Amino acid sequence: MTAAPTDRLKLAVLINASGSHIAGWRHPRSGAEQTDELSHYLQIAKKAEAGKFDIVFFADSSALFDGTPEHQARYSHGLAATEPKRHLEPFTLLAALSAGTSNIGLVGSATTTYAEPYSVARVVASLDRLSGGRGGWNLITSANPAEASNFNRTHHLDHATRYERAEEFVDVVRGLWDTLGDGAYVRNREQGVYSDLTQISALNFQGKHFQVSGPLNILRPPQGHPLIAQAGSSEPGRRLAARTADMVFTAQRDIQAAKEFRADIRARTRAAGRNPDHVLVVPGLVPYVGETHQDAHDFYHELLSLIVPDAGLALLAELVGEIDLRSYPLDGPVPEFGETQGSVSRLRLIEQLTHTTRPTIRILYESIAGASGHGFIIGSPVEIADYIEEWYRQGAVDGFNILPPVSPFAFDRFVDLVVPELQRRGLVQSAYRPGSLRDKLGLPRPKNSLLS
Amino acid sequence: MTAAPTDRLKLAVLINASGSHIAGWRHPRSGAEQTDELSHYLQIAKKAEAGKFDIVFFADSSALFDGTPEHQARYSHGLAATEPKRHLEPFTLLAALSAGTSNIGLVGSATTTYAEPYSVARVVASLDRLSGGRGGWNLITSANPAEASNFNRTHHLDHATRYERAEEFVDVVRGLWDTLGDGAYVRNREQGVYSDLTQISALNFQGKHFQVSGPLNILRPPQGHPLIAQAGSSEPGRRLAARTADMVFTAQRDIQAAKEFRADIRARTRAAGRNPDHVLVVPGLVPYVGETHQDAHDFYHELLSLIVPDAGLALLAELVGEIDLRSYPLDGPVPEFGETQGSVSRLRLIEQLTHTTRPTIRILYESIAGASGHGFIIGSPVEIADYIEEWYRQGAVDGFNILPPVSPFAFDRFVDLVVPELQRRGLVQSAYRPGSLRDKLGLPRPKNSLLS
Repeated sequence: MTAAPTDRLKLAVLINASGSHIAGWRHPRSGAEQTDELSHYLQIAKKAEAGKFDIVFFADSSALFDGTPEHQARYSHGLAATEPKRHLEPFTLLAALSAGTSNIGLVGSATTTYAEPYSVARVVASLDRLSGGRGGWNLITSANPAEASNFNRTHHLDHATRYERAEEFVDVVRGLWDTLGDGAYVRNREQGVYSDLTQISALNFQGKHFQVSGPLNILRPPQGHPLIAQAGSSEPGRRLAARTADMVFTAQRDIQAAKEFRADIRARTRAAGRNPDHVLVVPGLVPYVGETHQDAHDFYHELLSLIVPDAGLALLAELVGEIDLRSYPLDGPVPEFGETQGSVSRLRLIEQLTHTTRPTIRILYESIAGASGHGFIIGSPVEIADYIEEWYRQGAVDGFNILPPVSPFAFDRFVDLVVPELQRRGLVQSAYRPGSLRDKLGLPRPKNSLLS
Repeated sequence: MTAAPTDRLKLAVLINASGSHIAGWRHPRSGAEQTDELSHYLQIAKKAEAGKFDIVFFADSSALFDGTPEHQARYSHGLAATEPKRHLEPFTLLAALSAGTSNIGLVGSATTTYAEPYSVARVVASLDRLSGGRGGWNLITSANPAEASNFNRTHHLDHATRYERAEEFVDVVRGLWDTLGDGAYVRNREQGVYSDLTQISALNFQGKHFQVSGPLNILRPPQGHPLIAQAGSSEPGRRLAARTADMVFTAQRDIQAAKEFRADIRARTRAAGRNPDHVLVVPGLVPYVGETHQDAHDFYHELLSLIVPDAGLALLAELVGEIDLRSYPLDGPVPEFGETQGSVSRLRLIEQLTHTTRPTIRILYESIAGASGHGFIIGSPVEIADYIEEWYRQGAVDGFNILPPVSPFAFDRFVDLVVPELQRRGLVQSAYRPGSLRDKLGLPRPKNSLLS
């Protein structure tokens, strides 16, 4: 089931906050003071464009901190030591970035759990239009229980309901994008005809969660449908991705598991009647780049030394559920934990780490502090390029979503030192192709499902 | 009750679509082909900044066309002849405009009827941050029945419920803006302390329509609270404005009525315990500017000649409710009409026009085709400056919201010909003051209601 690699490796970069490492903000070369300003993100986006990256990507959550209110109260010291991962709202920020960039894709997360599909369809279409066809939507379900009480809910929706809702949500959004044909606005001054009403259709979606009439109040996006990314690794998450995603973000630390994951997504995509080459599997990767092997390991250990233990515990507790980890010794074994309603992939990784390497609590949080369960690599530019090349050649990935542990510092190093090595090997592009984000990625423009 | 004029006249410009006149898009110098592109709006915003305008303002509706589905079906020919007034989503567009401007205020409309206060608080705060303190929110209730079926509703909310909801909505939004103190993020690298938790508070709002915990996941906006504009002229609309608005948009065609309206808003503001100078009353004004008096009237009549009758009827019918106007002769008298759930101010204006001048149906729609009931002035630069000066000197306005009948053409003329005359008379500013939008307008930065 391992597929031949696609024509080239794709590169995205996650640009939230000043680093994916939990202590990254403390590093002297992080941009921690600038994360509420456009300039910080514009610097990263321009650097990404200089490195011919495909996408800048923005994660999201509709709450300041993660976890239940009880979790937040219990781990308040840890939260005070942790940089919030959300500073500016993704789509206003990406719209502003569109004005300062010209080739890179701009993908933002929006939740299907607490947002309205009409609003999401409109905002993402607007971003696609403003950027000349470079917009994308990372479709998420809200794993953060804190969001519920910000949106008139007494309880967080459970995992199964969230995915049921997400399935309908994406159908409404894609449907709304098709309610105006590309030729809906004829603007015939002479005859006084602005719209061709045969190119404007209602949607009249009637589902269990949504009843939405349409049409959308914006012209069909330049890409037809802006890029749809998705990141669920659970059974319903994979089903949704196979049916609807152009790109799948995922946390993978093991090449064999990554190969199996990609093969599974491709098989499901084929079974859903789609071309598996039209779903790009892009695991996260946290690169600790040094001029040399030793330099990189020094950087990694410098960051470990900056972790405030309470922050590590807060991170860990949020992933494993409502055990009070503070009552266990930091350098003792990790206790058993049960079911959670959080991210399945993160929980599995922690279970796996716990059962294979039998870490202490401190070592466990250190091992996920870089990017809560994503793969990471510590090394010289050649070592990192070797790692990336192996994953790509073996069909484990279509690309990587780079999570710089410290921004802008570690990302600058990746672009300056690793990208040229990848380009020399012909693995990544050295120049942008013309056209929209879909054109650049080799993905087709979706046909209109409502209008011909 | 007529107050002394404030220190200078304020100027805003409405930048939706290619003109406020229903036939403006047909004019050879409209930007009708560019209204889905950033460039169109950036050109207008830069022109406004060249003219030292205070604000670019974006109206909104969350549906493609106005009116009920029955209205849309009945007047489909008229809708096909009419330019939709919404092209890009306001806050993504304003965020993109923030990157290309440096002084002008950026105010977008968002509905309290179908949106969530957490989302609106966040997006507006993000715009304020991206623009360095130039953001604003025009708080609207949805007068367009077509929105209901785009947001999971079987019926449009009635006028009273919309305002009840709006009252709560604005309290939640302002409360959320106060959940983080200006010093919430201390970012002490040495001590490993990112947040000062004493500067972060929950909101725990419990109302009839909204239950929202907070805190908001973005730092307090640079302006404390971004500018709040409001446009309701009904009794509940005025109450809401007096309590919460920094700026009131309104439709006024008669100077005496405008004086009474402004005096009423100021009296109510004082009664609400606020300084009446902190509420700026800004009626809409459609200027038909010519090099000469004759030139201006030629331009006005050119636009009248471009109105497609079906479009005029559709516009009129939407304002007066569900009478089938097509069954009456175009050049005969206007029939009686009853109650609607639409905008009270628009209905009163039409009643007034009908009972005082006894127009034909055609003349009635021609008289509102410029901007559905806003005041308009046709004349040379001096004539228009005289009109503006009189309204200002008599205490009828704090400023005007300019609605160019054709964009960019008629707005360019206003900035090039009328603004220099207003500047020569010392009525408007010739240079920007430093600071945030509130600073420039002479409005105070709101104190934090939750944190000291």
